[in-house]
Amino acid sequence: MTIYGAIEAGGTKFVCGVGDARGGSLETATIPTRDPDRTFADVAAFFHTAAGHGPIAAIGMGTFGPVELRRADPRYGQILATPKPGWQGTDMLARTRAILNVPLGLDTDVNAAALAEADAAGADVSQLAYVTVGTGIGVGLVSAGQPVHGLGHPEMGHILVRRHPAHEGFAGVCPFHGDCLEGLASGPAIASAWGDAAGFGPDHPCWEVEADYIAQLCMTLFLSLAPERIVLGGGVMQQRQLFRLIRQRTADRLAGYLAGLTSADALTPHIVAPACTEPSGLVGAYLLAERACG
Amino acid sequence: MTIYGAIEAGGTKFVCGVGDARGGSLETATIPTRDPDRTFADVAAFFHTAAGHGPIAAIGMGTFGPVELRRADPRYGQILATPKPGWQGTDMLARTRAILNVPLGLDTDVNAAALAEADAAGADVSQLAYVTVGTGIGVGLVSAGQPVHGLGHPEMGHILVRRHPAHEGFAGVCPFHGDCLEGLASGPAIASAWGDAAGFGPDHPCWEVEADYIAQLCMTLFLSLAPERIVLGGGVMQQRQLFRLIRQRTADRLAGYLAGLTSADALTPHIVAPACTEPSGLVGAYLLAERACG
Repeated sequence: MTIYGAIEAGGTKFVCGVGDARGGSLETATIPTRDPDRTFADVAAFFHTAAGHGPIAAIGMGTFGPVELRRADPRYGQILATPKPGWQGTDMLARTRAILNVPLGLDTDVNAAALAEADAAGADVSQLAYVTVGTGIGVGLVSAGQPVHGLGHPEMGHILVRRHPAHEGFAGVCPFHGDCLEGLASGPAIASAWGDAAGFGPDHPCWEVEADYIAQLCMTLFLSLAPERIVLGGGVMQQRQLFRLIRQRTADRLAGYLAGLTSADALTPHIVAPACTEPSGLVGAYLLAERACG
Repeated sequence: MTIYGAIEAGGTKFVCGVGDARGGSLETATIPTRDPDRTFADVAAFFHTAAGHGPIAAIGMGTFGPVELRRADPRYGQILATPKPGWQGTDMLARTRAILNVPLGLDTDVNAAALAEADAAGADVSQLAYVTVGTGIGVGLVSAGQPVHGLGHPEMGHILVRRHPAHEGFAGVCPFHGDCLEGLASGPAIASAWGDAAGFGPDHPCWEVEADYIAQLCMTLFLSLAPERIVLGGGVMQQRQLFRLIRQRTADRLAGYLAGLTSADALTPHIVAPACTEPSGLVGAYLLAERACG
């Protein structure tokens, strides 16, 4: 078995692993995200210990963004403008290469997750969107088996949605746009509009509102990338009743325009929870490592 | 020179050609779209006459939709639910094969146009959107050089946009959604809201409203596919003042979120008119024919 390294570099924690996408992790570590020096020192310590499992052929990283992914750009691999103290300009590839000089694969955390979910879905799925709804709303896209990036990378958390009547007068929490999708439907937005959602039962009206916003994202996804599968993950999606509400609202919003997506039942195979048993982003990082060897 | 056939199958006219994407057409014909039998009889007559230029190696077709593009589906190549009388269920591939039994390439008219514009843009452009604003609003997408389709094909004319204050009380003209993008910003929507746009000068307030809607589409495109280039074509875009208005509104709407897309000037290389000198959809059909031979 070829052993790969994986790093899911998130804003609050780095999850590192050695193993591969099919067999899973042999060992993992969760490292709190602090400044780059201290964080990568812990990443280095993990990989030096984990080397006991055998030589690591390559490392894949799915990182928070924005990150430069254009190979021709001199900033390739660097974190771009970010409010996270100390991280702007951090060269994620150089930092990783300093730990272990092996082939490196890089993408966003959500594109890595999308890649893992597309791999899990098999050959019938060529277009896939991975959505995480939590502190922010992130979207990774895979088209014809390839993670999508061009001028930048997908940032669909910031698309415009139509405000739900229950949110009239709520300004939204996005520092850039106020009431974009993330500004109205992220975890902090729910807390800001309704109070602490943790105490809300599944019948609380906040979930109908949340479902309508995520359904608008699903509608836009079906009308653009035409994904066979939209995978919804993240902390907010632990409210499992949301899945049925989102499928129903997506069907309502599409209003029969897309054949086959006309009811909540019809949408059941297309709007799903993650299939990966390890975090999709970590599994995707293993796949990025594999691809870096190819 | 290898000679290909191209068919741009539109709802009001079929444009047929023989030639290739690089050198252009040796001969073209424009055929009014009537019922399938009469329309394809004229297509057949064109290709039989055009055979005088030499053997046709393959035919590519960019067609109006919705059309089944999944090769594994038994309806592959057929027009799906459409209000166009007589066309639902028409097998566009079988009809073309009956004319000339050569390899066939098929995609939507707007995906074909996107392919042509991506080819014209060269290797620096891997993600591209082609938008036509006319009787309807159509969007074709290319990701990593491949036309995008999955469960269906892009239908971004029907995304939700936020209504402009000047349109308060205007229900929109989309029979499915009322006030989706196409319902508010297509040619018929402009006519319905403002009267006959043909008589409006470039300073008429309708163009500011139109620009805001198309800018919302551009914003969604940049946040999803991250295209290096969005190509805007179609009858409405003959109002050239729209380009600058759309770039400005897109920058305003993005509000500094995407580095490098912060002003109308910065958006000038990214929101452009078609580069192809023949209709992009026809050029794209030649490229589909080439690919069908590969």
